[in-house]
Amino acid sequence: MSLLVTGSIGIDTVKTPYGVSENCLGGSAVYFSMAASFFAPVRLVGVIGSDCPFDLAKVFADRNVDLAGLEVRNNSKTFRWAGSYRADMDDRKTDRLELNVLAEAPPTVPAEYKDSEFVFLANTAPALQKQLLEQIESPVFVAADTMDCWIESRLDDLKLLLKKINALIINEDEARMLAGRSNLVEASEKILDMGPPVVIIKTGQSGSITCNGAGQRFVLPACPAGEVKDPTGAGDSFAGALMGYLAQNNKTDFESLKTAIAYGTVVASFAIADFSLTGLTSISKTDIDDRLKALRELTQF
Amino acid sequence: MSLLVTGSIGIDTVKTPYGVSENCLGGSAVYFSMAASFFAPVRLVGVIGSDCPFDLAKVFADRNVDLAGLEVRNNSKTFRWAGSYRADMDDRKTDRLELNVLAEAPPTVPAEYKDSEFVFLANTAPALQKQLLEQIESPVFVAADTMDCWIESRLDDLKLLLKKINALIINEDEARMLAGRSNLVEASEKILDMGPPVVIIKTGQSGSITCNGAGQRFVLPACPAGEVKDPTGAGDSFAGALMGYLAQNNKTDFESLKTAIAYGTVVASFAIADFSLTGLTSISKTDIDDRLKALRELTQF
Repeated sequence: MSLLVTGSIGIDTVKTPYGVSENCLGGSAVYFSMAASFFAPVRLVGVIGSDCPFDLAKVFADRNVDLAGLEVRNNSKTFRWAGSYRADMDDRKTDRLELNVLAEAPPTVPAEYKDSEFVFLANTAPALQKQLLEQIESPVFVAADTMDCWIESRLDDLKLLLKKINALIINEDEARMLAGRSNLVEASEKILDMGPPVVIIKTGQSGSITCNGAGQRFVLPACPAGEVKDPTGAGDSFAGALMGYLAQNNKTDFESLKTAIAYGTVVASFAIADFSLTGLTSISKTDIDDRLKALRELTQF
Repeated sequence: MSLLVTGSIGIDTVKTPYGVSENCLGGSAVYFSMAASFFAPVRLVGVIGSDCPFDLAKVFADRNVDLAGLEVRNNSKTFRWAGSYRADMDDRKTDRLELNVLAEAPPTVPAEYKDSEFVFLANTAPALQKQLLEQIESPVFVAADTMDCWIESRLDDLKLLLKKINALIINEDEARMLAGRSNLVEASEKILDMGPPVVIIKTGQSGSITCNGAGQRFVLPACPAGEVKDPTGAGDSFAGALMGYLAQNNKTDFESLKTAIAYGTVVASFAIADFSLTGLTSISKTDIDDRLKALRELTQF
């Protein structure tokens, strides 16, 4: 089934204890698309400036990523982000942020994408996410990400969005902030009350906790990673594989969601093993399936 | 098979956001024995002062806990601990500590316990743990706990102990401190190099990560807990159920260890649901088996 993502395309500079990656390709829509493309064709909606040094057609060559929704805006500049990670890789600091084209009007969803069935709204202002979603005619399953700054400054917009989506994928600190509860089970129940039938809370190195409105739950640890070189894009790679798996199988029941989350966990573990997109571009679907099998063995008793 | 525990018996005062429990029965050997007794008979080795207000024979009535190793020392005072937990229950502060009888000579292992096959050395000075262990003739499987203060001040003693045991059960912060590695997979490999064939790292609300020298791994999340009233004793209850299950089945292979860890996880989740021992004394083996089944469903995909 068709899978659409709206999100950022950026020029990243990342410092980790393993080194520095300067002016590399990044952005939520890029990580998502790369991860999802192992499972299903992807329709990418995003915008860059004319300064963007990357040829996305080449980046996604042979990857089943449709770039009809990529808008190159003349006289605008591409989004830039620079960040650094501490030794434990758990927390990151933004060193520089240039929204550039992301501070302008959002891209338009092309007419041929309006029939998209699976939709991922990567993190941006919730009013924009809603505006993008309204351009899709009758989506089957919509997931969205958000972050602390929108919970703090755009809570009303976010609450409107939460009533329009099928799943919220959120970090544990953001879940606590949104719900006003430190206990994650209580937090997920509070968030379910806000509208989305499914809440997926990412707990970093601990993995994820998923709850739905029918009282079903799924807890999965992260793949134990011996070496984490660059955590950038982990969350969007997780979402990409998750949504890619659902779209591939055209299923949204809880059992399918569990397998989708396991694939998300596996693909995220590859993403963080190297800088920028290298962790994702250097693997095959067989590598992913092998690690899924290993994750199953690692967690079953 | 026979299961012996050496550890503390204490008078605890615990403050949590749910209330205060004053002068209640606590201590590592008490929580361990209560948890283990669901699975196998327990031999308790510990010492109290003549001031101890608790009748342990009554506490463990019908629980298959042998108290021949309980020494009541006249003219000594029982160990006391007072602590409080913050709102998120993740971190605790010691408000008062009176070692009392724990600062004196350790108890003697009774002659009839010297043939014990499964042994748990609850947290105390590693030289004392080693001294207690040396009184057991030919143990089959020995697990030990330790804590930050011994890693800091008695590292040489601890390293000697690590060569004598089969499994170290340790908190994540302590594992990082002992290994000098923040990544838990790397930390567990460093600790395996120090001697114990198995390392079980408890990651609090995240669960546990287990590794052995043969490269086998097991990652299990904690049971998602809606209400945590008092985390005191969680680690010792985990160890109690784990060792109880192994002793009950007289097995120490990795598959058995995985099930043992799952039982430990389940019993710890009951222990923290109420103050002092109430979480453990108010349940049956059927409750434990039901939650084990739920944990399996929660984690399988």
